[in-house]
This record gives sequence, structure tokens and C-alpha cells, in this order.
Amino acid sequence: MSLTDTDRLEAFSDGVMAVIITIMAFEVRRPSGPSLQALHDDLPHLLVYVLSFAVVGIYWNNHHHLLRVTERMSGSVMWANLHLLFWLSLLPIVTGWVGSFPVHSVPAASYGMVGLGSALAYWILVRMIIHANGRDSAVARAVGSDLKGNLSLVLYLAGIGVAAASPVASYALYAAVAIMWFVPDRRLVGTSAAPEEATSP
Amino acid sequence: MSLTDTDRLEAFSDGVMAVIITIMAFEVRRPSGPSLQALHDDLPHLLVYVLSFAVVGIYWNNHHHLLRVTERMSGSVMWANLHLLFWLSLLPIVTGWVGSFPVHSVPAASYGMVGLGSALAYWILVRMIIHANGRDSAVARAVGSDLKGNLSLVLYLAGIGVAAASPVASYALYAAVAIMWFVPDRRLVGTSAAPEEATSP
Amino acid sequence: MSLTDTDRLEAFSDGVMAVIITIMAFEVRRPSGPSLQALHDDLPHLLVYVLSFAVVGIYWNNHHHLLRVTERMSGSVMWANLHLLFWLSLLPIVTGWVGSFPVHSVPAASYGMVGLGSALAYWILVRMIIHANGRDSAVARAVGSDLKGNLSLVLYLAGIGVAAASPVASYALYAAVAIMWFVPDRRLVGTSAAPEEATSP
Amino acid sequence: MSLTDTDRLEAFSDGVMAVIITIMAFEVRRPSGPSLQALHDDLPHLLVYVLSFAVVGIYWNNHHHLLRVTERMSGSVMWANLHLLFWLSLLPIVTGWVGSFPVHSVPAASYGMVGLGSALAYWILVRMIIHANGRDSAVARAVGSDLKGNLSLVLYLAGIGVAAASPVASYALYAAVAIMWFVPDRRLVGTSAAPEEATSP
Repeated sequence: MSLTDTDRLEAFSDGVMAVIITIMAFEVRRPSGPSLQALHDDLPHLLVYVLSFAVVGIYWNNHHHLLRVTERMSGSVMWANLHLLFWLSLLPIVTGWVGSFPVHSVPAASYGMVGLGSALAYWILVRMIIHANGRDSAVARAVGSDLKGNLSLVLYLAGIGVAAASPVASYALYAAVAIMWFVPDRRLVGTSAAPEEATSP
Repeated sequence: MSLTDTDRLEAFSDGVMAVIITIMAFEVRRPSGPSLQALHDDLPHLLVYVLSFAVVGIYWNNHHHLLRVTERMSGSVMWANLHLLFWLSLLPIVTGWVGSFPVHSVPAASYGMVGLGSALAYWILVRMIIHANGRDSAVARAVGSDLKGNLSLVLYLAGIGVAAASPVASYALYAAVAIMWFVPDRRLVGTSAAPEEATSP
Repeated sequence: MSLTDTDRLEAFSDGVMAVIITIMAFEVRRPSGPSLQALHDDLPHLLVYVLSFAVVGIYWNNHHHLLRVTERMSGSVMWANLHLLFWLSLLPIVTGWVGSFPVHSVPAASYGMVGLGSALAYWILVRMIIHANGRDSAVARAVGSDLKGNLSLVLYLAGIGVAAASPVASYALYAAVAIMWFVPDRRLVGTSAAPEEATSP
Repeated sequence: MSLTDTDRLEAFSDGVMAVIITIMAFEVRRPSGPSLQALHDDLPHLLVYVLSFAVVGIYWNNHHHLLRVTERMSGSVMWANLHLLFWLSLLPIVTGWVGSFPVHSVPAASYGMVGLGSALAYWILVRMIIHANGRDSAVARAVGSDLKGNLSLVLYLAGIGVAAASPVASYALYAAVAIMWFVPDRRLVGTSAAPEEATSP
């Protein structure tokens, strides 16, 4: 028995995302003192960690659903996937930065840049997978018009745009992206809802 | 061949828990000097690490036994599982915080909050799995009345309650939860005790 | 298809050991300046990292060979395995400590304590596996008299004993353990040398 | 069902490489202030991270293609693989070091030493695999004359050589190695390009 290329790509991506989630929590840091005040000072770190955890969770979930209906891999898919992991690996850094300076414009815009980069990388990954599997493949039909993917790009761009005026508005827009993706993609879920079928593609 | 949704969820959770365990050890930090005194000063860090390691080990063990008898997954199960991992990912932070301030009330109560959040998240995960598999499923029968799960919630609440008066009493209650769960759940063990059966569900 | 209990235990252990190796490298730290002198000052960190990397590599290798001939798991085996991982997870801390204070007795003895704890935990794990698989099982016959396991305990004890007089002698003894184990256990290798057989136990 | 030795080796290596990638991002660190200037000061860290991420990505990709055509494992292959992981695990340290001192010779040469060590370790791994599988095996034919592998060694040596005169020239040579390997090895790709075949070796 040997695992397929798809299994291997998914396992590696899962590994990177598992480490990102945990390293990110490490960035929250323990409060500097034993008081309630110290815990309260840590609150921005905790809030942005919740947002970033949700972002990684959404990517893990959608990535999983996407690869579930993918039949063929290619060299381009592998590099497109590494490109996505690259952007996600920057998330812990901007998460820590925003946690330290929650009301400043440059960190707020940078968080959006990493979000935008990740969304673009996912968008490219989807295109590469469709290219490798054909326009009539199950995965191409499942992805469809990709409204959510395009809307994410717009919302991240808007968030970066308003960061100079209001970092809080930026975070609201980034949170909106997360909430929008929270429900796993209806187009793909249909294929993997019945586990018996999903395990024998 | 393709891995099932259950395998994938378990592998990702295992990955996160493996990183949590090791990152947590990283929080213990090397003693500040080469003396026995410096090693002794590090003792609270080491003791709370032992407790937290046991907590993660218990979740890993029970999570494993739980998914072993689970046949069907759903989107809600996936999110309920990420919710559990979120709480567990906060464990290294409170572990480091308690290690630095072992006799203070706020860290002691916070440790209990993370323990309570994890226990609640596990409780929700079990319900979501039963919901996806049906009340007559193997997993529903295996879980039964879930006495231990409910008792954990009570003990964590008690630990948080007494933290203001006595942090030591809080730790005793948290340790009691760990000891209670140490023996893997007899209700589930029956199904996976015989490895031959467990490998062909 | 579902992975077996043995696969799962091995995957989780592999995950923890993979993180330990990488976190340990993180403890080496970048040199404090851009000069050759700064690199030279970092040398003790690098040397003890090489030793600790070898130790984890040996455990990974032997653990892998051991589980390859294991047919049955039990709750005790799972806990014995977590116990081993606990000791190994302390290795990055003592590695960093010894790297900072390479000529002091207490760090040298502590390194030996972690080595001894790991060796004892492995010794216990082997016994638990034999207990679960029976005295006539393939794994019991493969382990045999376990000369190397017993010798490791003696060498670590000796290393701890001489640490007060000469830390360098301690490190020589710890290195001797690593060198002794470097060649994978001949008793177990025979079973897994032919990959075709090893994949169908 | 049981995973093969090849699967296990690949899974462990994937785990270590996944952690290396993410830990390395951690070395980039959040900028010290909320300003554009602070972000700009962090630029060398970010650039060298991009290079190191590419290096690990290339090893992951080639390692994957190599093991895909490997049929037999041996003890020597396992140790040769650990040896490769050892060198890769040093990459985060030199990455952080070069990020802190981007125009200094010693860090630039050290980065090349780690690159050279990794390339040599990969070269040894390929030889050990060919030795275990025979000169007529699929993997031996696929590797062929290994022009790229030999050229990498030369480029890294050249990079180390010019570091004293011009660190920038060193980085250009290291980047050239990465670009050269970016396209997965044509000799091996042929075997895994068709996923249907690759999954049933």
C-alpha cells in the first residue's frame, strides 16, 4: 500500500497548518504579571489570535474539501500549494504585531496584505487544480463561479484601503471575510457530506 | 486508496496536540543559572508542565478512542473539533503563566478557565458526533451517560471558584480531573481493546 | 480503510519527535554577533545539539523497528508511550541549559537524568508491549535479553555519578550510549530488513 | 493495513520539514514598532526567509519525488535521511542570523555551509537509496547522472568562497541554486506525472 500524491500534499499542508496554529498561540505570550490588569492588557493579543485561528481553521477546512474532490495532481499544484503555505506562515508574525500595536495603521494594513496574499494564493491553487483535472472534472464543477473567493479579495483590499483612516474598520472587514467563509463551501460540501462515497473516489 | 475524513481529522488533531505538548515544554525554559538553586526555582514550571502534559495526553487518548467508534463526520463535527483544539492551544500560555506565578489567584483561575473551555468543547464535540451518527450508533451507545464529562465541568468550576481563596486548592482540583480521566474511558475501551476488530470498523 | 492503532501511535510519536528535533535546533540560537568569535561562542550549543539530535534519531529509529513487529496495543502501551514522549520532550530544555553552561556539574547531571528517564521509559514501553503481545510473540522474541537497554541505564547512571567531579566525563558516557545504539538493534532489524515482509505483518 | 517503511520515512521527514518552515517564519519576528520604518528594517529577515522557504520547499518536493520511485529501504537510508534532516534543521538558525546581519561575511558563509551540508546529505541519501535498490532499479535509472546535484555543490562552494569579498554575491549564488532546482527534476517527474500510475508502484 502506498499513499497517493493527494494524501501526501494534504498531510504536509495539515502539518504546516497545525504548527502555524500552535506557534501563533505562542505569540499571545503569557501576561507580564499575575494581576487581572496584566490579563486585560493581553486582550488585543487574544482577540487577534481568535481571528487568526479562525482564518487558519477556514483554510484547513476548505483545503480539505477541495482536495477531497481532486483526482489529479501536477507539479504546478504542488508549488501553488507551497505558495499558499508561505502566506499562511506569515500569519503568526502579523498576528503578534497587531496584538502589540492594535490601533496602528501599518500593522492593520500588513495583516490585510497577508490575508490578501493567502486568498490570492488559494485562488491560484484552485485554478491550478482545475487546470490539472480538466474543465469537466468533478472539482471544476464543484468550484463553479467562486463568488466567495472573489469577494474575499475585494474585502481584504477594502480593509487595507481603510487601514490608514481606521484600523478598527480594517479588522471588521477581515472578520467579515472569516464569517463569510465560516460555513464550509456549499458547492463542495455536497460531494463530501456522505463519508462512504468520499472514501472511495 | 484514500484516507477517510475521520483519519484526516484525527491526523490533524494529533499534529496540533503533538506541537502543543512540545511547545509547552519549551515554556518551561532552561534554568537561569547552572546551580541547583536555579533548577529548584524552575520547579513550579516543571510541575505545572507535568499536569498540562497529562491533560493533553488524556485528550489525545480519549479523542483517539472516541473517533475509533465514529463512523460519520459532518461539517459541525469539524468545527467542534477545531473549537476543542483552540482551547487546548491556550494551554501552553496558561501553563507558562502559572509556572511564573504559582501562588497567585488570577493565573490559577485562568488555568481553570482554559481547562473548563476544553472540557466544554470536548462535551460539545461528543454531542455533535452523536448527532451526526444517530442515537442508535455505536458511538452513542459507547458514550452513554457521560458521567466523567459532567464531573469534569463541575471540578473545573469548583477550581475556578476557590482560586481567589487558595490557588493550591485549585490545582488540587485540576489534578483530580486529570487523575479521574487517567484510566481511558471504560465505555469506549471495550470497542477498541481488541485491535483486530478496531482496525476493521 | 482505517489506520490501525499501531499506525496512529507511531504517527503521533513521530509528530512529537519531529517537533522536538526542530525546537531543539531553535534552542541553539543564532550567534549574538556577525563575527567568527560569536560563532565560536555558540559551539557548545551546537555540539550538544548534535548529541541530542542523535539521541532523538536513535529513539525514532528503534521505536519504529519496535512497533513494526508489534501486533497488539493496550491502554498501558499508550500511556507507556506518552511517558517516553514526556521524557524526550524535556530534552530540548536540558540541551539548551547544557549549551549555556557546558562545564557545570548540575546541568551535566540533569542531562543524564533526562537521558536516564527516557531510557527507563523505553524499557517500560518494551515490557508493556511484550505483556500485551505475549511471551511467545514476534516482538518478545525479537527483543530477547535487551542487553543494550540495560547497559544504557548503567551508563547514564555512571554519567550522573561523575558529573560532580567531571562534566566532560559525563558527556563522554552519554555519547557512548548514543554510539552504542547508533547501529539499529540487530535483534529487531532482521524482521524489518526485507521491506516486502515488513509491510504485511 | 499497515503503512510501509517508505511511507513512514516520508511522513517523518514531512513532519520535520513542516516544523522547520513554520519555525523559520517565527525567526522573522514581528517588527519592533508600528511604523513603516520598522517594517522596512525587517526586510532582510523577510527576504532571506523567502529564500530559505524556497530551499525547504525544493527539498520537500524532490524528496517526495525521490521516495515515490524508491522500492526498498535499509538502515543506511534511514540514517542518511536523518542526516539530511539534521542539516535542514540548522537552516532556521542561519536564516535568523543572516536576517540580523545581512551584509556580513561570516553569516553569509555559514548560510552556504548549511546549504552545502544539506546538498551533500541529499547526495549521500540518493546514493544509499540506489545502493539499497540496485543499479538497475527504477530509482537508479531515474536519478541518472545527477547533474543538478553536482552543480549545487559547486555553486554552494563558490558562494562560501566569495562571502569574504561580497556577501551579496554569495546570496546571488545561493538563490541560483534554488532557481535551478525550482522546476522539479525532469528525470523523476516522468515517473510520477501520471497520478494513476504513481499510486500503484
